[in-house]
Amino acid sequence: MSSNAYQVLEQRFARMGALNEAAGMLHWDMAAVMPEGGHGARAEQLAILNVLAHEMLTAPETGDLLEMAGAQGLDGWQQANLREMRRLHVHATALSGPQVEAMTRANAACEKAWRAARLAGDFKAVQPRLQVVLDLTREAAAAKAEKLGLSPYEALMDQYEPGALVAEITPVFDAYAAFLPEFLGRVVEHQNRRGAPVAPTGPFSVASQKALGERLMGVIGFDFHHGRLDTSLHPFCGGTPDDVRITTRYDEASFADALMGVIHETGHALYERGLPEAWRRQPVGQARGMALHESQSLIIEMQAARSHQFCRFLSPLLNETYPGNEAAFDPDNLFRLYTRVEPGFIRVNADEVTYPAHVILRYRLEQALISGDLTLGDLPGAWNEGMKQLLGLTVANDRDGCLQDIHWFDGAFGYFPCYSLGAMTAAQFFATAVVASPEIPAAIGAGDFKPLLGWLRTHVHGLGSSLTTAEIVTRATGKPLDAGVFRGHLEARYLAAA
Amino acid sequence: MSSNAYQVLEQRFARMGALNEAAGMLHWDMAAVMPEGGHGARAEQLAILNVLAHEMLTAPETGDLLEMAGAQGLDGWQQANLREMRRLHVHATALSGPQVEAMTRANAACEKAWRAARLAGDFKAVQPRLQVVLDLTREAAAAKAEKLGLSPYEALMDQYEPGALVAEITPVFDAYAAFLPEFLGRVVEHQNRRGAPVAPTGPFSVASQKALGERLMGVIGFDFHHGRLDTSLHPFCGGTPDDVRITTRYDEASFADALMGVIHETGHALYERGLPEAWRRQPVGQARGMALHESQSLIIEMQAARSHQFCRFLSPLLNETYPGNEAAFDPDNLFRLYTRVEPGFIRVNADEVTYPAHVILRYRLEQALISGDLTLGDLPGAWNEGMKQLLGLTVANDRDGCLQDIHWFDGAFGYFPCYSLGAMTAAQFFATAVVASPEIPAAIGAGDFKPLLGWLRTHVHGLGSSLTTAEIVTRATGKPLDAGVFRGHLEARYLAAA
Repeated sequence: MSSNAYQVLEQRFARMGALNEAAGMLHWDMAAVMPEGGHGARAEQLAILNVLAHEMLTAPETGDLLEMAGAQGLDGWQQANLREMRRLHVHATALSGPQVEAMTRANAACEKAWRAARLAGDFKAVQPRLQVVLDLTREAAAAKAEKLGLSPYEALMDQYEPGALVAEITPVFDAYAAFLPEFLGRVVEHQNRRGAPVAPTGPFSVASQKALGERLMGVIGFDFHHGRLDTSLHPFCGGTPDDVRITTRYDEASFADALMGVIHETGHALYERGLPEAWRRQPVGQARGMALHESQSLIIEMQAARSHQFCRFLSPLLNETYPGNEAAFDPDNLFRLYTRVEPGFIRVNADEVTYPAHVILRYRLEQALISGDLTLGDLPGAWNEGMKQLLGLTVANDRDGCLQDIHWFDGAFGYFPCYSLGAMTAAQFFATAVVASPEIPAAIGAGDFKPLLGWLRTHVHGLGSSLTTAEIVTRATGKPLDAGVFRGHLEARYLAAA
Repeated sequence: MSSNAYQVLEQRFARMGALNEAAGMLHWDMAAVMPEGGHGARAEQLAILNVLAHEMLTAPETGDLLEMAGAQGLDGWQQANLREMRRLHVHATALSGPQVEAMTRANAACEKAWRAARLAGDFKAVQPRLQVVLDLTREAAAAKAEKLGLSPYEALMDQYEPGALVAEITPVFDAYAAFLPEFLGRVVEHQNRRGAPVAPTGPFSVASQKALGERLMGVIGFDFHHGRLDTSLHPFCGGTPDDVRITTRYDEASFADALMGVIHETGHALYERGLPEAWRRQPVGQARGMALHESQSLIIEMQAARSHQFCRFLSPLLNETYPGNEAAFDPDNLFRLYTRVEPGFIRVNADEVTYPAHVILRYRLEQALISGDLTLGDLPGAWNEGMKQLLGLTVANDRDGCLQDIHWFDGAFGYFPCYSLGAMTAAQFFATAVVASPEIPAAIGAGDFKPLLGWLRTHVHGLGSSLTTAEIVTRATGKPLDAGVFRGHLEARYLAAA
């Protein structure tokens, strides 16, 4: 009976999985090709798909089946699948229908107000709306925390990176915050000694950038039989594991952002494509979480592509594509261009070294907001104080401060840590992979990503959600997440003699 | 209570409508942009969307609500909407689940066998599979006929063109069959007297054809804020009324097929875009049927674009796009190119004059197959006899005969009449519109489709499914469908002195 119940659950979740995949494709379409006038109909379609999937998940029969289903007679993957079904069910049923509706409405209203407030640099203009969002989020966090046996803030993180724990993250982030100021000073000094790298001169046509991007996607291992590259305002990786759609945007004055953006999204795409094929559309067949996902984009972008080896591979390709920039495309110059460190106010523009400072600031502040230790009235001041302390910068306008990111204003608390957990995890994976397969760096220099991809397929992609992120990291690297590996990577990359 | 029931039904059908729209977008994606490897996941997504919409439609609560809902308190559009809901419900519930499943499986197997049989020109190789399809179709037709109060063949037609009646179609088709042989002889003789028109010489780049197609779409009135032109193997019009996606395919050796194809699909697109906005995703807000839909593509392609007036408008555009073809692009030569008549074996290649013969043949044969008057063993012979009688051609290979079309082998009986009903209806609409707005021909010659489009918006597009096709035709033109108007159009176009 209990294994019968499990079979019925698999069928139900396959339906939800197909609905989610359909919604994913429609999201891609909306961002990449939909004409402007299609928004109304698209919103209806997506709302219906989401409601239907939600209704299936929260239906009383689903709850009954989850009660009945026991681990007996199930193999390891099936047990993990059942565990993931339960986790999704808890998240979906922890909140009442009216609660979800109120949050949806509050988030939309706040996000809209935020767009105007950010332009005006006027935090007070959006504060009342944000207060509603925060109040509802705290309520939701408390409800989920009780059901999940986590703290309220952890319950929020669990939506994005299941199993993320404050007790594990805080020491890692604190160690980095302690390490950064002196290290940053040394990096900037080291950079200044060498002078500024030579920038290439354009224009760089969209067509040439796209062709180059697709060529590099092929080099890295993107499967064009199962995916595409398109253009959208905000680059992303969408679609499904069998049909991965990545996007970028182009600037004809500079190709580096699109190039590195495509490489970054290709890392996400490889993860999706490598998920266990036997578990398509089942919870256990999905990517583990956003921190692990980010580790897969960053291991390709930051660890592999912004390396000396890859710059040597890239140099002749760039000379071929954009003749007349030989000095800029010298491999060492390319490396210096792609590893430039410069503290700034804006997270999305930050380099590899200062990026975690932006995340740590938000991580600390959102914990305080959720716990009630920090009120919204004190948020701008606390933000600016944190920026001063972490990066030595004085914020003059909230536009460059607490108004810069959409996340909180759209109700997404607990997401930020994923970015830096991903960066640190990527460093740890890469270091381990290179020990296991010492040919990896030279292969990257020859445009051969197969050794690295092989390691990732085995130790990350193919595992889906069968293990927790902590288990995946520990099994793959022999130890839990250790920020020391990331720091070591930074020291080797940013302080090495030229 | 009864109007409450109606409100609940509107909500249910809005959900089904959104699911159908989502499926429509995924179909477009599959045909236009999906990488080859996406087929498996896409089939799953579409199957689930279809199953969910079908489950909503056939759910006992839907039947109960349809019983409860009365016309009292409903306005005319609501009453029409309720009538359409009931029609859809009858179609969906007339067949049992196992019946639908058996048909789906039989159609798929037969369609696959047909692809091989057609290549080999071997009807016998697919006959057993087609027999299964035919038996199941006859069973389904009988079941639907009883519930709809129609003959079995009419019940099949009703799936594509609601309300289509044999007693109305047969006289129209018979009159055309009687008219054709002598008329065709005169047309061919008339053509031969003038000699062959000059063909333009290429190549014609895909980019130039696409730009020209989009330019003409704009001229005709396609709304690019609510739609796109893309490429697919089989041209079609898909998407939704607020996001109409048309496709074409390009041949660099000849631009005429893509050009006329784009114009044809633009006609379909104008219909979708002009459907009543207040009734989006409700049954009454949908296009009336496939015959009426075809009338809208053909009024733009055949009536408007293959006219002397449009050729005069097109001539300078073509000279500008493809210089060096002045003789071919002379307006009169263009007209002769685009109205060339030549009897042939293949329906999809047929001209405006002989196309109905292909349809009449199929209409007669499929009626006989459904009634049991014709067995599959006798089909090839009956086909060849019909071709001899209608067009004077001797079929030497079933590849050029009863194996040429996918329809029957995929279970689509009752669809063929729509093509020619559409052509005849288009002629009747156009003649009426020109009487009402005599400036229409000259406007088309000046690249101004607004007068024609205005008439179509009022008399066809904006009506959605609020009336039957017969009512729409009669109200718009003052009389029921009259093949005489179509014949008059052909006589004027094909026998006029140069």
